[in-house]
Amino acid sequence: MKKVLNAPDRAVEEMLRGMELAHGGRNGNDGESGLIRRLSGQTVAVRADAPVSGKVAIVSGGGSGHEPAHAGYVGPGMLDAACAGEVFTSPSPEPVLEATKAVDGGAGVFYVVKNYTGDVLNFEMAGELAGTEDIETDYVVINDDVAVEDSTHTTGRRGVAGTVLVHKICGGAADDGKSLPEIKSLAARVNENVRSMGMALTSCVPPERGEPIFDIAEDEMELGIGIHGEPGTERRKIEPADSIVDMLLEKVLGDSVDYSGSGGQDVAVMVNGMGGTPLMELYVAYARVHDVLAENGINVHGAPYVGEYMTSLEMAGFSVTLLKLDDEMKRYLAAPCSVAAGGLF
Amino acid sequence: MKKVLNAPDRAVEEMLRGMELAHGGRNGNDGESGLIRRLSGQTVAVRADAPVSGKVAIVSGGGSGHEPAHAGYVGPGMLDAACAGEVFTSPSPEPVLEATKAVDGGAGVFYVVKNYTGDVLNFEMAGELAGTEDIETDYVVINDDVAVEDSTHTTGRRGVAGTVLVHKICGGAADDGKSLPEIKSLAARVNENVRSMGMALTSCVPPERGEPIFDIAEDEMELGIGIHGEPGTERRKIEPADSIVDMLLEKVLGDSVDYSGSGGQDVAVMVNGMGGTPLMELYVAYARVHDVLAENGINVHGAPYVGEYMTSLEMAGFSVTLLKLDDEMKRYLAAPCSVAAGGLF
Repeated sequence: MKKVLNAPDRAVEEMLRGMELAHGGRNGNDGESGLIRRLSGQTVAVRADAPVSGKVAIVSGGGSGHEPAHAGYVGPGMLDAACAGEVFTSPSPEPVLEATKAVDGGAGVFYVVKNYTGDVLNFEMAGELAGTEDIETDYVVINDDVAVEDSTHTTGRRGVAGTVLVHKICGGAADDGKSLPEIKSLAARVNENVRSMGMALTSCVPPERGEPIFDIAEDEMELGIGIHGEPGTERRKIEPADSIVDMLLEKVLGDSVDYSGSGGQDVAVMVNGMGGTPLMELYVAYARVHDVLAENGINVHGAPYVGEYMTSLEMAGFSVTLLKLDDEMKRYLAAPCSVAAGGLF
Repeated sequence: MKKVLNAPDRAVEEMLRGMELAHGGRNGNDGESGLIRRLSGQTVAVRADAPVSGKVAIVSGGGSGHEPAHAGYVGPGMLDAACAGEVFTSPSPEPVLEATKAVDGGAGVFYVVKNYTGDVLNFEMAGELAGTEDIETDYVVINDDVAVEDSTHTTGRRGVAGTVLVHKICGGAADDGKSLPEIKSLAARVNENVRSMGMALTSCVPPERGEPIFDIAEDEMELGIGIHGEPGTERRKIEPADSIVDMLLEKVLGDSVDYSGSGGQDVAVMVNGMGGTPLMELYVAYARVHDVLAENGINVHGAPYVGEYMTSLEMAGFSVTLLKLDDEMKRYLAAPCSVAAGGLF
């Protein structure tokens, strides 16, 4: 197996240790940005200064293998905690509950959950348990992937790269003093206006599995792929980058978000690498995204997000995300944040 | 060929167009950070506001395929221009000369050149041509790779990921008003104190070639690999991450930089992904780097650089770079910069 790991079953813990050593604040050297610390006995990264009194805490997480999601987004301006399950496996309720207790600053805790059955169940259960300890919680379930309605791990649409924009916007709103109901309402509005679709050229190899999730021929691609190797909508011959972008955008633009109305033409754009696709290719794809949006009278607001935001281990491929923006979303997308993967914003 | 491209021979130009659309300042929408513009008719990205009067301009470049190097580092605080050759091919003297003319603000132009025969010849020739147009230039040749003394494209050691630290430090010094001779002296000192070594699990596939540069078995790795698929020092069975880090650091620490002297114990650390290695694995590797340095009494100064800084297309693998720091280097590493790949700093 082509991996730089010590043991598959220690990969997540060792990764989080590396992140804490790199970005932590208690390791006895000065190679520290003081952003995060791990919760003892849990694969959870929390803000080094958590809890922040009086601020709604934003918590996310899910299976590992999507780095920099989610621990790379922990820090001022984004997440208060990230709960890491094993690779492509939901974290159980316990680490979510412990994260909740560690970051609650008295104003409640808001969960940003991608729509996978395990994640939704486990975050819901953690919220119920937190309630018994008098911590108020609420949550949003993100389902931005337009590719398929139901999938291997999902009833309804999957949550994919658009989730990172929800992290950023909710983090900004929490820093701005918004209440738990206000943040829930905003997050729901972001979810209603964000759409993504991805494609893959290769499978990824989960460490504990040790082999690719699926086989794909040298001249084939998979459209509408998930971020855990779940099947997409179509297997076909590889096409030029521009044609691939056209196919993804046709589905994204043809979905239920109306990009035509007054004020509806400003969008945030993300071209997200799945892990194994060179930045060169992501920029080639972005050029076409820009052209197609311009042809459709849609305006890219702010610099687009081109890079690896929500990966699928070493999978080659990419996704395109559009978020139709309102003024509040614009303000919080542009707000400062300080996280390990912060250069991405 | 598993690539998101339209045509191999247009890849570099289309990538630069995508970068300009994403990070440029003249594209008729507001999706612009105003950082870079392309020089007409050249595969060259320059600062949008070039030339900056009275400041030494820093220019780098080389073959493409190492993204975000080099155009991702163009902007205030780092490079004034990046000259992009075809994939793994030196840019000719002409684009370097045009870049030089575009960014010269009257204080001279400094070239940061990786030690490859073509790059050195072409930057030298551009400098001579610039001299005939009364533009003063000077340059440093970076050769931080401890793996091999000579290689496929090199007399002497290769320049690899450590070059990005030279970009950052020279960019900071130029912003601080340092003169051309002062920057040359500083760059030479950085080069004397920076060492790198890399490894690969897979080959990369240059677009025009369409097939891997080398074959490697499923259970093998190559130590001391270059960033163009050049052979390393040793082909052997894959070992655990910790053992791989130990092998790389043994060679780096055993080279001619003395890490023991007073003030010599502070280092900048980079764990650089080659393109196809998940961030999870880079953090697992960093944890071991941290431990080995601590055992050797070496202190990691500032947050380490863990990510993709100098890639080799989609190659799986990574390199470790150590730079022994003095106060001037620390100051310029920490100075602000605003570049497309700026989140990496």
